[in-house]
Amino acid sequence: MALKTPLEYVESLRALNIRAYVGGERVDSIVDHPAIAPHINTVAKTYELAHVEEHRDVMTTISHLTGERIHRYTHIFQSADDLVKKIQMLRLLGQTTGTCFQRCVGLDALNATYAITFEVDAAEGTDYHERFKRYLGRVQAEDLMLAGAMTDPKGHRAQKPSEQADPDQFVRVVERRPDGVVIRGAKLHNTGGINAHEILVLPGTGLTADEGDYAIACAVPADAEGVVFIFGRQSNDSRKLEGGCDIGNPRFGVVGGEAMVVFDDVFVPTENIFLNGETRYCGTLVNYFATWHRANYGGCKGGNADVLIGATAKMTRILGTERNAIVKDKLTEMIHLNETTYASAIGASAMGYALPCGSFMVEPMMANTVKQNITRNVYQIGRLSHDLAGGFLATMPDQKALENLEIGDLVRKYHTANPDYTADERIRYGRYIENMTSTTTMVEAMHGAGSPQAQRIVMLALASLDSKIALADQVLNGTDDVPGLPLPGSVSGPA
Amino acid sequence: MALKTPLEYVESLRALNIRAYVGGERVDSIVDHPAIAPHINTVAKTYELAHVEEHRDVMTTISHLTGERIHRYTHIFQSADDLVKKIQMLRLLGQTTGTCFQRCVGLDALNATYAITFEVDAAEGTDYHERFKRYLGRVQAEDLMLAGAMTDPKGHRAQKPSEQADPDQFVRVVERRPDGVVIRGAKLHNTGGINAHEILVLPGTGLTADEGDYAIACAVPADAEGVVFIFGRQSNDSRKLEGGCDIGNPRFGVVGGEAMVVFDDVFVPTENIFLNGETRYCGTLVNYFATWHRANYGGCKGGNADVLIGATAKMTRILGTERNAIVKDKLTEMIHLNETTYASAIGASAMGYALPCGSFMVEPMMANTVKQNITRNVYQIGRLSHDLAGGFLATMPDQKALENLEIGDLVRKYHTANPDYTADERIRYGRYIENMTSTTTMVEAMHGAGSPQAQRIVMLALASLDSKIALADQVLNGTDDVPGLPLPGSVSGPA
Amino acid sequence: MALKTPLEYVESLRALNIRAYVGGERVDSIVDHPAIAPHINTVAKTYELAHVEEHRDVMTTISHLTGERIHRYTHIFQSADDLVKKIQMLRLLGQTTGTCFQRCVGLDALNATYAITFEVDAAEGTDYHERFKRYLGRVQAEDLMLAGAMTDPKGHRAQKPSEQADPDQFVRVVERRPDGVVIRGAKLHNTGGINAHEILVLPGTGLTADEGDYAIACAVPADAEGVVFIFGRQSNDSRKLEGGCDIGNPRFGVVGGEAMVVFDDVFVPTENIFLNGETRYCGTLVNYFATWHRANYGGCKGGNADVLIGATAKMTRILGTERNAIVKDKLTEMIHLNETTYASAIGASAMGYALPCGSFMVEPMMANTVKQNITRNVYQIGRLSHDLAGGFLATMPDQKALENLEIGDLVRKYHTANPDYTADERIRYGRYIENMTSTTTMVEAMHGAGSPQAQRIVMLALASLDSKIALADQVLNGTDDVPGLPLPGSVSGPA
Amino acid sequence: MALKTPLEYVESLRALNIRAYVGGERVDSIVDHPAIAPHINTVAKTYELAHVEEHRDVMTTISHLTGERIHRYTHIFQSADDLVKKIQMLRLLGQTTGTCFQRCVGLDALNATYAITFEVDAAEGTDYHERFKRYLGRVQAEDLMLAGAMTDPKGHRAQKPSEQADPDQFVRVVERRPDGVVIRGAKLHNTGGINAHEILVLPGTGLTADEGDYAIACAVPADAEGVVFIFGRQSNDSRKLEGGCDIGNPRFGVVGGEAMVVFDDVFVPTENIFLNGETRYCGTLVNYFATWHRANYGGCKGGNADVLIGATAKMTRILGTERNAIVKDKLTEMIHLNETTYASAIGASAMGYALPCGSFMVEPMMANTVKQNITRNVYQIGRLSHDLAGGFLATMPDQKALENLEIGDLVRKYHTANPDYTADERIRYGRYIENMTSTTTMVEAMHGAGSPQAQRIVMLALASLDSKIALADQVLNGTDDVPGLPLPGSVSGPA
Repeated sequence: MALKTPLEYVESLRALNIRAYVGGERVDSIVDHPAIAPHINTVAKTYELAHVEEHRDVMTTISHLTGERIHRYTHIFQSADDLVKKIQMLRLLGQTTGTCFQRCVGLDALNATYAITFEVDAAEGTDYHERFKRYLGRVQAEDLMLAGAMTDPKGHRAQKPSEQADPDQFVRVVERRPDGVVIRGAKLHNTGGINAHEILVLPGTGLTADEGDYAIACAVPADAEGVVFIFGRQSNDSRKLEGGCDIGNPRFGVVGGEAMVVFDDVFVPTENIFLNGETRYCGTLVNYFATWHRANYGGCKGGNADVLIGATAKMTRILGTERNAIVKDKLTEMIHLNETTYASAIGASAMGYALPCGSFMVEPMMANTVKQNITRNVYQIGRLSHDLAGGFLATMPDQKALENLEIGDLVRKYHTANPDYTADERIRYGRYIENMTSTTTMVEAMHGAGSPQAQRIVMLALASLDSKIALADQVLNGTDDVPGLPLPGSVSGPA
Repeated sequence: MALKTPLEYVESLRALNIRAYVGGERVDSIVDHPAIAPHINTVAKTYELAHVEEHRDVMTTISHLTGERIHRYTHIFQSADDLVKKIQMLRLLGQTTGTCFQRCVGLDALNATYAITFEVDAAEGTDYHERFKRYLGRVQAEDLMLAGAMTDPKGHRAQKPSEQADPDQFVRVVERRPDGVVIRGAKLHNTGGINAHEILVLPGTGLTADEGDYAIACAVPADAEGVVFIFGRQSNDSRKLEGGCDIGNPRFGVVGGEAMVVFDDVFVPTENIFLNGETRYCGTLVNYFATWHRANYGGCKGGNADVLIGATAKMTRILGTERNAIVKDKLTEMIHLNETTYASAIGASAMGYALPCGSFMVEPMMANTVKQNITRNVYQIGRLSHDLAGGFLATMPDQKALENLEIGDLVRKYHTANPDYTADERIRYGRYIENMTSTTTMVEAMHGAGSPQAQRIVMLALASLDSKIALADQVLNGTDDVPGLPLPGSVSGPA
Repeated sequence: MALKTPLEYVESLRALNIRAYVGGERVDSIVDHPAIAPHINTVAKTYELAHVEEHRDVMTTISHLTGERIHRYTHIFQSADDLVKKIQMLRLLGQTTGTCFQRCVGLDALNATYAITFEVDAAEGTDYHERFKRYLGRVQAEDLMLAGAMTDPKGHRAQKPSEQADPDQFVRVVERRPDGVVIRGAKLHNTGGINAHEILVLPGTGLTADEGDYAIACAVPADAEGVVFIFGRQSNDSRKLEGGCDIGNPRFGVVGGEAMVVFDDVFVPTENIFLNGETRYCGTLVNYFATWHRANYGGCKGGNADVLIGATAKMTRILGTERNAIVKDKLTEMIHLNETTYASAIGASAMGYALPCGSFMVEPMMANTVKQNITRNVYQIGRLSHDLAGGFLATMPDQKALENLEIGDLVRKYHTANPDYTADERIRYGRYIENMTSTTTMVEAMHGAGSPQAQRIVMLALASLDSKIALADQVLNGTDDVPGLPLPGSVSGPA
Repeated sequence: MALKTPLEYVESLRALNIRAYVGGERVDSIVDHPAIAPHINTVAKTYELAHVEEHRDVMTTISHLTGERIHRYTHIFQSADDLVKKIQMLRLLGQTTGTCFQRCVGLDALNATYAITFEVDAAEGTDYHERFKRYLGRVQAEDLMLAGAMTDPKGHRAQKPSEQADPDQFVRVVERRPDGVVIRGAKLHNTGGINAHEILVLPGTGLTADEGDYAIACAVPADAEGVVFIFGRQSNDSRKLEGGCDIGNPRFGVVGGEAMVVFDDVFVPTENIFLNGETRYCGTLVNYFATWHRANYGGCKGGNADVLIGATAKMTRILGTERNAIVKDKLTEMIHLNETTYASAIGASAMGYALPCGSFMVEPMMANTVKQNITRNVYQIGRLSHDLAGGFLATMPDQKALENLEIGDLVRKYHTANPDYTADERIRYGRYIENMTSTTTMVEAMHGAGSPQAQRIVMLALASLDSKIALADQVLNGTDDVPGLPLPGSVSGPA
């Protein structure tokens, strides 16, 4: 059966021998580590909802390879409707978990590799595509969680890969063997990698012809020899270990459990290599991935913001401000900002078009506007949440104060607002808002799927100023008017 | 044949006996009046493009009544794809004319009446729907231009229709006869009415049970006895009569040739009456119309902004600033703002759903975000255009100065920037930008299809804060976690 | 007596033999031309209020040259208090006229010339300063209105003066005579020049050493041989000739009556020359002028916005919306945006410091923020005015419709909102708002005193990123802590 | 000597017997607690800089009571210049510490009490003012750090103090004795109280006549019987206990070490009571305090943002992006936003006016715009910092990873960008940015000195829409024009 249960997912992770570090210490079992467990619990929801009848159409689909029902997270987009359903799935999961559920990078990386291998083969006579389809078949059959690995460390930002003082600032092939290659480097901000089954490593940038060693796309088991995960810190991360109402988000993670994954001379056998030296396709590959991924943010952040708006609306009831017209107007603004990006993501998906390989790409201009607006609207939504939740967010007491026998009652007494709600409840929702608007959360919205400037460069290129100038020229100077009308432009003629 | 040519459209207008006033004077022939001709020329493009093979799929479709090919502007939306194609048609027409092409109000009014008559009949046992379908058949067969008439004068904004000092501040039935009714009142900001074939009059607001005389929906020929059109002024309108480079937009109109249409005791025969006293459906009727109409703005304004961006980009070449990184960034921002609303309009359309009558409604939350963003983005785009086009916009010389033998050469000499372009060209594009960012143009974007606050009221109602609070409650307090994970929330348990 | 009356000002203009063109026609008498009269009436207020006891302290001061009471518009700033009073004068005049009163460019040009001549003399041994003081004495004694002339046509924006295809794109000396020089060129967007007594011509840009002919500062009587004024068009300008409620602003002008002033080989005698070839001071001269001028906008636009806010608030009463909480919030936002720039202008003035010549310069960073915010806030204020005043702004009927016997009553009936106000009054305030938010008005706010980018370049230069980095370095790495405190930075020491 | 040294300040704290709780545990010595020490170190800078010759004029002044030199933080504002110097002092301290230095609440509370006691005495014949001056004399002579205590818990926000279910939601008198009163209640978000010498308790809201027990202003020693401090959590607070590069701000605090201070039936002797039952002065008292305090934010946040901009600019050098035009433009925007609020704060101060008691109040409209802009600009500045610093902010490795022998080198290798800077340095600056843009920091900027809506209510009241309408009426309808001018308004006369 292609659809894992949550427990099967967890147990399958336990079977892996992951080399991971959290807080600078080697982790014995990622499944049993309290810093990682919330992220695993979040991914588990993606598996769980695939078994819920009500969500079956959104969470699962039919494999174009086998005709079997598979998880949508292992699917190659076959239509615009598939793209729309992806966005709907993301919003649903965002509403369910209130955070990042981590499987989108892998999904989009799968699709990008599927598309580019087809194009490389067509042009170069290679056979990457069939090889990749075999790999894809296994991913679908085993319902694997894949982590896409895109973002290289990049070193000095004004230098290309081949110009860096340290040549390892972009993942590269350091040794070529008859049966495969050895890669070295790292990928940063790797979402979900620490609790994924496999890593799909793709080039993170366009390359020039002399940078062939950097043109490597391949799959790497998460517990392959030489793979090291180093978990990044998150705002307020250590509160997870303290428990109580300070945790913020007690069940799920903050964003995607991002880790640095190091490829410390990792051998990749040939059957897992999907691009190897074909530099001129790397720009397109990155672009394919980024375009799909940018549209996603209208879905997942839409769901996350639904939860944040809900928590904020609840705070207005706890405070007793919920009937104020200005308070309602601010909640409306949060809704408006959130729905704007969702609507655009749906638009980008509905306008999807077929790539050469037959899979579907989102409309790129729209996809880029989604992400660009996310880099603004998420901040604005967070700011409005702060406005409505009150100064209390900055000075909330901690769980230990509540538990202290001398002062616990005082703390509760003076943090009770509307007496229909307890002080503890107020604090728990306050801590949730704190985490969901923390630096870690906001920065992910800013830089995930590419920094703001990356979208702007694409948008300007897509817009074609020349064609817009031609429109203006025609509107001002065209002569195809209805004959006989006394148009002002003909009174004295154009100058 | 159901598709009029541009000339047939113009001649059909000439055949009407319209009572219209422009500049306070009775107009002999609207077709021959230079203030109205540009608006007619604009509508003519809607007829013209329906005959262009390349645009046939977007501009025309098949009538669900007759199976005949008809203009999309007389079509009842049969699918989400129909809704998407409408938005694409609007962008195409916006790019072609750079202004409002006026037929959308009639189209959405047709659809709103189609839907509501079905629902009234089903609930009340009336037969409005069949009557309306006969009317619709004629509209489609004759390819009529309809002007929807929605906006009542409204008098004192804090009073309902029945509370007004002047009961005529909302259109109402003042006499009931065996063969029809007599209506009195006016509709303001009536787009395209002065050069339409017929007016489809709908209630402009929800009504209470005692306001039955205001619950009237009906079709009125544009030249019916008692119908008076009074053309509003537009910014810089009289320049159209002066000719030369001052005109701004020499071929097409500024926005939609809005007029006040007065119903000075107009008799409406029964066959043209589609709602008569059923007050409790008026709110839904208005809402149907407004929802479709709000999504439109992502299409038409998208096309208009394409032309404005083109004119602005051209100005940067005329000035010689086009290579500057900050200039490019500002053009990118214009593009981004414009594509955001287009993407959302496509999203709202693609998520369209069937109404009881079988026709398709756009997704209402998305449609409202479109219009809400228009009320901001159009201003921001205009502001950036001013920024890039320069102070020259405020002080451009006039055509007569260019023509004056003593000073014409001086004016040209000192208004030449990049010598590859003439001063006259610079001025003509400057005047176009001036008009396209004038008060008339901006205010239409602000208030057309409902003022900003109207959208916000709808959005808040649609969002359901209760359901969002439920999401937050579940994310914080839910207990459906994967068993065995060391989730922080269970370390000391929720408070 | 140094303080002209309004009538004396008007009569003194009449005595000049100005060569001016309006609408492409030579004007017999500027004072009697309806396009120019409103601008003259506006300036007349600057003269009138100097005679009002209540405003004496703000409108007049004591000449540092003679000890005589003079108009503040001919004064060299002697203190920070003088700078503050200037801003207060501007707000008062803005509130009184609702538009540009035109004398600020001349005032700041006077001050810039005063300061730079002192510095040139000190460095170069020239005697411009004494010469200029004689000129200044006459300006003060006769209470002259001066128009500063700064903005050259500039031709191709990516080329310096000496690189232009047409060398006259910046004003320059084309002939040197024993008793003076002959200048050629033009200045654009010249505020108030057409109704000023004299023009103070300054270089409009920094210059390189080989551009000596462009380094010319001089005074030119407005009716000197070869001086030609060509009046620019303004949005809706021809309505002024139509009368009635369409005029918009019936008494005063729209912005500053900007004209192109051409120097068609104008002879300037030596006594009126204040800089002649000293290229390396031109950058400072332009900078002095621009800095003072940028602060002004917090005063004049503050007063103008007071009137616009008042007109908008009145419209809410006419409509009956004035009690709505959201309406009040939008008015509050208009107020906030307006007061922000006023407060900053006061701040820039209060922090004024002495230049080498002893006169006072505003604090430059603050002055630049004022203008930068004006380029945003004025647009935002206009947008909010549109929001509150309603769609009516785009479709208002005209005076001739009101006067037409057949339709006048209908127009009035259906434009009456709150019956406490007449339709005519509603229209007149609507037209005022239309003009005060027209392209001409907005663009002036955008580009007057330098385009937005000009301020940004200055701000970045003034901010000194190096010094800010030094602050950050010290905050993170400094060791000057109180001994003995258990500071976290010392637990394991800085890395 | 009235000027304490930093060490004297620390030692004087040590002498107090403060009852404080941090992390739910009773603190033995606040001076020796690592969570409090950074805040003490920050305040110590306010004492230290008073001894630095270069800053003497800004940091100290002459007591109007005694003629002795005193710290500016104990001074009653005697002039507008005093107000300006306060803002300059705040910026200097903000630049020095990069955070809140805590003494402003006490200073403004001192000034508010000074002013209101004068007015109460004048109207009521009481003698609070003399009593307060004696208190003030001691504060100045001993250079005490005062914490103003304003913000009551407030309970249900839609209910007045006397309507609350728990009458203690606002501090009140619960017992009256011959020699004083007993107070009960709490003050939240109390800045600096935990390391202050005394608490100046003021009413936090306007009161009605029947709420006399809530009208209490008094001074309470920080170690008085019944005073309990409960330290609030801050974002990432526990990192301070971990040390290394994770701390963020290793030397100084995040915002003001806000604590809840509980008055658990505290006796206040008569000599420390400065208002006792005079309810009708409480609104003015709160208003005085808030107005001064709102202007402050232009100073302190200006200095803090200087440090943040510096850290961000440094990050662009570490990344190698510092030459990019768009990067520079974003830094410019940060500067612009920051200088806008500083300029307004200076403006508000320079326009200060004398209160009845002779001390100086800032201009209230300007002061409110400062704070209103802070609630926006601080967020925008933080967002731009995130944009420029990169996604790295969300996933930075921790100190323990750097120290781990197995992975430390890998972490460093792959976090090195421009090799001129170490990875450790990059992380330390990144952590600083994280903390300075954390929820705690942003929320303080949002809600300190009153939530955004509080400022808007004041601004609308101050603006007087009636007077602005009068301006508009006069501009449109006034008849005081220069006779004889052909003004368009007189062509057909006003309607």
